[in-house]
Amino acid sequence: MRGKFVTFEGCEGSGKSTQLRLLSEYLSSSGVDFILTREPGGSKISEEIRKIILNGKNVEMCDECEALLYAAARIQHLRETVAPALESGKLVICDRYVHSSLAYQGYARGLSVQYISEINRVALESYPPDITVFLDISPVAAFKRKHGADRDDRIENLGLEFHEKVYRGYKQLLDKDPYICAVDCGGSKYETAEKIKNLLIERQIIT
Amino acid sequence: MRGKFVTFEGCEGSGKSTQLRLLSEYLSSSGVDFILTREPGGSKISEEIRKIILNGKNVEMCDECEALLYAAARIQHLRETVAPALESGKLVICDRYVHSSLAYQGYARGLSVQYISEINRVALESYPPDITVFLDISPVAAFKRKHGADRDDRIENLGLEFHEKVYRGYKQLLDKDPYICAVDCGGSKYETAEKIKNLLIERQIIT
Repeated sequence: MRGKFVTFEGCEGSGKSTQLRLLSEYLSSSGVDFILTREPGGSKISEEIRKIILNGKNVEMCDECEALLYAAARIQHLRETVAPALESGKLVICDRYVHSSLAYQGYARGLSVQYISEINRVALESYPPDITVFLDISPVAAFKRKHGADRDDRIENLGLEFHEKVYRGYKQLLDKDPYICAVDCGGSKYETAEKIKNLLIERQIIT
Repeated sequence: MRGKFVTFEGCEGSGKSTQLRLLSEYLSSSGVDFILTREPGGSKISEEIRKIILNGKNVEMCDECEALLYAAARIQHLRETVAPALESGKLVICDRYVHSSLAYQGYARGLSVQYISEINRVALESYPPDITVFLDISPVAAFKRKHGADRDDRIENLGLEFHEKVYRGYKQLLDKDPYICAVDCGGSKYETAEKIKNLLIERQIIT
């Protein structure tokens, strides 16, 4: 039986890495056959593309180039890593997916949602996630969590105003797509982890 | 006045590099204000993308990833290099453009022409070439010219059958688009150069 495909979304500082670690620990301890992977990246070629996208020196990158590079890394990752795992019956947990492109390059950068959908058409048609978990925390609160991080990441460096647009973009996606589920991250990390686990059980992703 | 945009197309071994060199020499000696640039590449970010595309080790690359990387390198090159030159009134001569993607990733790889057009929509809509020069030589004759070249280029290494599909793809594009002009390359390189020069004069690209 084909495995389930679960993607995680959220703004910078939403605690996604922490939640993915906690979920992985839970799945491992429960004996679930799963892989945890990420975008952009998750395969050799996609990681090479990731370096170009996130390189803080690539300030000249135009919005369409960024969106196309994300789409290129995505389809390669799907074909090389995600699809074989799903076909062998594994649960695939993926850190970011098409919804990131819709929120970041679409709503926040100002490219049209139609354009983002077009360049990601094969991903959307062939590999729709069974559920997308959106870690819901306001950008202001998320920024406080990230404060003091000293990294040369072109996307993280974009400032609060940009990340507020991303957040509003995610909210619009939530209104449109019943497969995206918001999880309130206002409590402790363990409370959030419990909510995620319960959501995945309720949606019959895990038992 | 906005400059003219001229793109060159052809199969591997069609003598494109030689013709571009001869044309550049002619334009320089005639005092034409022009730039010669190439795809994929022609800007720092696009050259980084080029390295991933052409790396002979990247054998796992799926067709859509390849097409999206070409489109990403293309739009960055357009925004950063081609558009500023056109706006300053320069003639832009570009070695390969969207028609390469249509012939190589579309007709030869088997992706749909609609998909290639979608992912290159911004390029096609915002930067249509004033003329596309197709260097017309059969793949068998072109392969003979290239014979003995020892390079680790993922696209050039694809073999005669692939390049015959590319050639047939170009022929189909020629039938559809009056802005693509075939130049027969059966004669000497100087005869071909003369034909190209006359074509550009006839189409009022140069005087």
